Amino acid sequence: MEQSLGKASIRLQKPVYILNSASVAGTKEAQGPLGLLFDKTGEDDMFGCATWEEAESKLQKDAVSIALEKAGVEAEDISFIFAGDLLGQSVATSFGLSAYHIPLFGVYGACSTCGESLALGAMSIAGGFAKRAVCVTSSHFASAEKEFRFPLEYGNQRPLSATWTVTGSGAFVLGDEEAADSMKASGKGYPRAGITGITVGKIVDYGLKDSMNMGACMAPAAASTLERHFVDFESQPDDYDKIITGDLGKVGQRVLIDMMAEKGYDISAVHMDCGIEIFDGDSQDTHAGGSGCGCSAVTLSAYILKQLEEGNWKKVLFLPTGALLSKTSFNEGKSVPGIAHGVVIEKV
Amino acid sequence: MEQSLGKASIRLQKPVYILNSASVAGTKEAQGPLGLLFDKTGEDDMFGCATWEEAESKLQKDAVSIALEKAGVEAEDISFIFAGDLLGQSVATSFGLSAYHIPLFGVYGACSTCGESLALGAMSIAGGFAKRAVCVTSSHFASAEKEFRFPLEYGNQRPLSATWTVTGSGAFVLGDEEAADSMKASGKGYPRAGITGITVGKIVDYGLKDSMNMGACMAPAAASTLERHFVDFESQPDDYDKIITGDLGKVGQRVLIDMMAEKGYDISAVHMDCGIEIFDGDSQDTHAGGSGCGCSAVTLSAYILKQLEEGNWKKVLFLPTGALLSKTSFNEGKSVPGIAHGVVIEKV
Repeated sequence: MEQSLGKASIRLQKPVYILNSASVAGTKEAQGPLGLLFDKTGEDDMFGCATWEEAESKLQKDAVSIALEKAGVEAEDISFIFAGDLLGQSVATSFGLSAYHIPLFGVYGACSTCGESLALGAMSIAGGFAKRAVCVTSSHFASAEKEFRFPLEYGNQRPLSATWTVTGSGAFVLGDEEAADSMKASGKGYPRAGITGITVGKIVDYGLKDSMNMGACMAPAAASTLERHFVDFESQPDDYDKIITGDLGKVGQRVLIDMMAEKGYDISAVHMDCGIEIFDGDSQDTHAGGSGCGCSAVTLSAYILKQLEEGNWKKVLFLPTGALLSKTSFNEGKSVPGIAHGVVIEKV
Repeated sequence: MEQSLGKASIRLQKPVYILNSASVAGTKEAQGPLGLLFDKTGEDDMFGCATWEEAESKLQKDAVSIALEKAGVEAEDISFIFAGDLLGQSVATSFGLSAYHIPLFGVYGACSTCGESLALGAMSIAGGFAKRAVCVTSSHFASAEKEFRFPLEYGNQRPLSATWTVTGSGAFVLGDEEAADSMKASGKGYPRAGITGITVGKIVDYGLKDSMNMGACMAPAAASTLERHFVDFESQPDDYDKIITGDLGKVGQRVLIDMMAEKGYDISAVHMDCGIEIFDGDSQDTHAGGSGCGCSAVTLSAYILKQLEEGNWKKVLFLPTGALLSKTSFNEGKSVPGIAHGVVIEKV
């Protein structure tokens, strides 16, 4: 039986296995520090499609296809797919995944969606409702600029606090113990890692309105979930090899470390942010870092799981962060609330 | 232990209780056939707010508040809230629910979202992850027209196959057996009904492109989930007092009944559609019927659960239907895929 810790957290008594995963990324990401680790990168960011939205759908489709192949399973072996993206009405997902004919739960948590999908996917398996599930999320620089900001042709200037939306998609095939055993028996290798805990975030709104500084808007949400997590799991920062936020960037990272220090937790030695890792800010002109649902997803698949597999890390807290704005809410002068979902991932 | 039936369906061995629920609706809905049954209706459709989006947020906030009060619980008694709406980046949800500080799973399934949220909420409780959860969805005629179609001031003409987006929100407080017992013991009454089965839908795309005939676009998805449900549960149409789709409207209803007949199931005697029930099409000029996440949600809370409570019905299949389009996908000439999630709801 699973263990509810407080109301936001769940300890999984048996790990839910990440059987395998895949990352597909764009050209700028391919030139970044993690470039050689992605399973697939595009020759250009259209991925052979006619529109940016179709290109983003293609990212999801390819990521799922590669992840299934690496895990040695077919689409019909999957009970549920938990998927989402940043576009209005999640159209990258709707047009990217229909060919798989897998029962779908659409999820939306802005750039925290990777964490949300892994949490729900793990719950569906730990609860005995599914043997295998897929979690997939994506973002695309150009479709996101069109959705949230200005036409690319304007050549709009961006402040140094702004982030650069990652073009990429990460897909994860989750499974129970039986699915893991069956994968091993068929010679398809070992699970990459296991999910052992979840802390679900709440909406945190500090009233910040600067959509060009989303790191600062999201940091209070990350701090809220992180504090809840430490309390619920009776853990401390040094219980984790890394505490990894999604896309706070350089500004948000400073805010988070300061806020946690005020709460009595020094996370400075273990904190890492996918948005900071994925680009070389100095040479790639990406300002505060990368962002988007795809940022944490491809970094988890390509880099974080690799560190766990190789034994460099034993246990991490993966904490994707989302900024809950739309262009309508921004134009109507609303604030930018944040949300962050935590998933404990361990070497198995 | 729960029972997985095939890969899309789940039979819950013990019902997940709908402890109580609430419906908040707009002025046109108040004048319709179900008008007297809603818990709250607005004096106008702004609900005291400055924008349509804020008004939709207020609908969700009020629906949750009334549902919690009717169930005799506080926000801090709730583990998770599963919530979504139709707007880009689900902003009605983000700005409507932040005040409750409840860990949030944002969901998106277009107008099927009420079914999706009930499915995930029930799974979170049946899996032992939560004792109580809230599921809430909303739509608003004016915010939806702005999001998907034309400025209201254009007075755009609509074909007879078009539906009218319902202004409304429905919220449901789910609980396990202990929560139900505790509600009874505190004199707060009995659960309204129980969720006993789930069939999760997949994306179904017949290539239809007419966003003014969403009933026809969604009917194939409803037929797909319904057939899957009958096979997985080894059931027949007459095992249900009603099979209730969300917002197919009059055109979609005919398509669904015909498609099911071709599959060998005659559902004509038991089929009902929330979109047809909520308005008087002849006098209210709503053409094919009502639609939107709020349509099935308020009809479930105000009308369907009442029939189950009063014993007029014993068992229904609630099957909200969603059209997975955005204005971008429409403008780019894409089709309108559909999805439908089924939830078995029984008298307890």
